[in-house]
Amino acid sequence: MKKLINDPRRVVSESLAGFGLAHHNLVRVHSDPDLVLRREPSRGKVSLVSGGGSGHEPLHSGYVGTGMLDAAVPGAVFTSPTPDQILPAITETDTGAGVLLIVKNYTGDILNFETAAELAQAEGITVATVVVNDDVAVEDSLYTAGRRGVAGTVLVERIAGGAAERGDTLEQVAAVAERVNANVRSMGVALAPCTVPHAGEPSFTLADNEIELGVGIHGEPGRRRMPMADANSITDQLLEPVLQDLGASSGDPVLLFVNGMGGTPLSELYIVYRRAAEVLAERGIRVERSLVGNYITALDMQGASVTVLRLDNELTELWDSPVNTPALRWGM
Amino acid sequence: MKKLINDPRRVVSESLAGFGLAHHNLVRVHSDPDLVLRREPSRGKVSLVSGGGSGHEPLHSGYVGTGMLDAAVPGAVFTSPTPDQILPAITETDTGAGVLLIVKNYTGDILNFETAAELAQAEGITVATVVVNDDVAVEDSLYTAGRRGVAGTVLVERIAGGAAERGDTLEQVAAVAERVNANVRSMGVALAPCTVPHAGEPSFTLADNEIELGVGIHGEPGRRRMPMADANSITDQLLEPVLQDLGASSGDPVLLFVNGMGGTPLSELYIVYRRAAEVLAERGIRVERSLVGNYITALDMQGASVTVLRLDNELTELWDSPVNTPALRWGM
Repeated sequence: MKKLINDPRRVVSESLAGFGLAHHNLVRVHSDPDLVLRREPSRGKVSLVSGGGSGHEPLHSGYVGTGMLDAAVPGAVFTSPTPDQILPAITETDTGAGVLLIVKNYTGDILNFETAAELAQAEGITVATVVVNDDVAVEDSLYTAGRRGVAGTVLVERIAGGAAERGDTLEQVAAVAERVNANVRSMGVALAPCTVPHAGEPSFTLADNEIELGVGIHGEPGRRRMPMADANSITDQLLEPVLQDLGASSGDPVLLFVNGMGGTPLSELYIVYRRAAEVLAERGIRVERSLVGNYITALDMQGASVTVLRLDNELTELWDSPVNTPALRWGM
Repeated sequence: MKKLINDPRRVVSESLAGFGLAHHNLVRVHSDPDLVLRREPSRGKVSLVSGGGSGHEPLHSGYVGTGMLDAAVPGAVFTSPTPDQILPAITETDTGAGVLLIVKNYTGDILNFETAAELAQAEGITVATVVVNDDVAVEDSLYTAGRRGVAGTVLVERIAGGAAERGDTLEQVAAVAERVNANVRSMGVALAPCTVPHAGEPSFTLADNEIELGVGIHGEPGRRRMPMADANSITDQLLEPVLQDLGASSGDPVLLFVNGMGGTPLSELYIVYRRAAEVLAERGIRVERSLVGNYITALDMQGASVTVLRLDNELTELWDSPVNTPALRWGM
C-alpha cells in the first residue's frame, strides 16, 4: 500500500487541517473534537448537520457552506463520529430555528446521532432527524439494519440545504429531506477494493476478472460477485434495480447522478452516464438534471454508483438554488 | 486491468457522448471529428481553443464554457488531436476577434496546432498561440523538447478565459496567458502507474515501495525513482524545485494548486496541501487562492502534483471572475 499520508493515525486530522486552510473563506475547522463549521454562521435559518465516518470525501465536509450544510462531523475512517463530537455541531449552529440531522443509515451513526440529539434536546434545542437509506442493493448489511445510505445523501444535503436557506421551518426542511429520500435510489459496483490507511491492506479481495455488484461505500458485500463485464452491461445491472425499486415510469422527470468511488477516472463515469441516459431515454424517463463525478467516495476504491432521483418542480428549484461549498458550487 | 469501458477503441467517443449529454446546457459535442464547443457561441470576444490527448479529464473538455474555453479538441488517449480536428474548432469559434490557441508543450501538439493555425490563417483568421511549459521536473522528456505542460494549463485557461470574457483583444488575452505561464511552476509524483485502455497494461512499473518523482502526465519518467516516503517529505521534494525555479520570495502572493492524478483520494490531496501551505507560510509567501482536486489527470494514475502561480492584482481578479464550465464553476 502506498498512500500520500504521514501517519495512519493522523490521516483525518491532517486532511481536515489542509481542507480548512484551502477553504478558509467558506469553513472553519475545529479540532478536538473534529468539526467543520460554516465560516459565516447562518442567521435565523434552520441548521443542517451531517457527518459520518471519514473516507468518503468530499462528503460531508466538502458540503459545508451556503445552501447546504451548517456543520459536518467527521469520524475516524469508516467509523461513526461520537456523540460528544456531534453535540457541539448541533449547539454551535442552532440559531433557535432548530437543527436537522442528516444521517446515513448505519447502525453506529444512527445510535450516535440519536444520543447527541437527546443531549441537545435536553439543552432545549429542537432537533429533527432524516435517515438516508437509498441503496437498493441489499436489505440488511454488514453495518446496517435496513438499507444503507449512499450517494442519495449528497442530494438530500443539497436540496434540504436549499430549503433551509430560503427560510423554511424545521418541519418543512425535514419534509423536503424525507421527500428526497423517498424518491431516490442508488446502486454501486466495485472493480477493485479500497485500503483503509490504518489497516494497510485491501478491505476485501476481488479476482482479476471479478467485480462486486451492489457494493457498499465501505466495501461491504453487495448482491453478488460476477465476472467483469462491459460498461453498458454493468450500468444496466445497476440501473434496473434502481428504476424498479423507484417505480420510475415514462414521463417522470429525474436527476441522474453517476458517482465515482474514488479510483475510477472521470472518463469512465461518463461512459456509464451515457448508457444510463440512453436507457432512461428509451423508457421515456426525462433526465432534467445531472451530476457526474466523485461526490461520495470509498477512499481509493475503483468503481461507480448510479443514482436516480425523481424530481418535482419544487425539488428541481431547490436543486438549482445557489450553493457555495468547497465541493459543490453554483449560482454564486 | 478492469475498466468501466465497452471497447478500448470507443473510450473517447463514448465518454464524450456521455459528457455531452450530462452537460448539454453548457456544451455541444461534435463527433467525426471529435470537438467540444460552447452551447452558446461567444459574440465578439476573442475565442480560446485548447486540446490535446484524452485521458486527462476534466482537462480540456470540462473547461469549455463562459469564462474559459470556447472549444476543446480531444485526441485519442495520450495522443495529439489532428490538424483537421483543430481547424474546425478555430473556424467555428472565431467571431472576427481572433483565436488564442493554448497548447501544452508536447511535440505532437505543437506541430498539429501549428499546422491548424496556418490553415486557419490562410482562411483569414487571426491566430495567436501560447505554449504552456510549467513542469520543472525535467528539461526534455519522452514526448517533449523543453519543459512539459502540465497542471499550469488549467490556470492559463481560466485566467486567459476571464480576460477574453471581459473583452480584451487577442493581443491582450495572449499577453495575460503568457504572463500566467511565466509565473507558474509545477511538479508531480506517481505512486502507481496508469493503464491506457487500448494497451491493457500499466504504462510503466513501480516496485511496491517505489515512487516516480517528477513524473509526467502520461507516465513519462521524472527526475528519479525513490523509495516511498511520507506525504510531508514528498511534498517538500515537489515544492522546493517549484519555488526555486519560480524565484518565489517572501511577500509574494500566490495561488497554491494541489492536483490529483486520478486514482488518489481527495483526503490525501489535502494532506499534501496542508504541508505545502505550511512551507509557504514559513517563507512568508502568501497563499491568496487555492485549488485542490482532480483537475488534470493521467487516467487512473495514483499521485499528485503541486503547482504555484505567482499572482498579481489583475491575475487574481481574472481568476475570481465568473466561470461556468462542467468542471470549474463560480460566480454564476
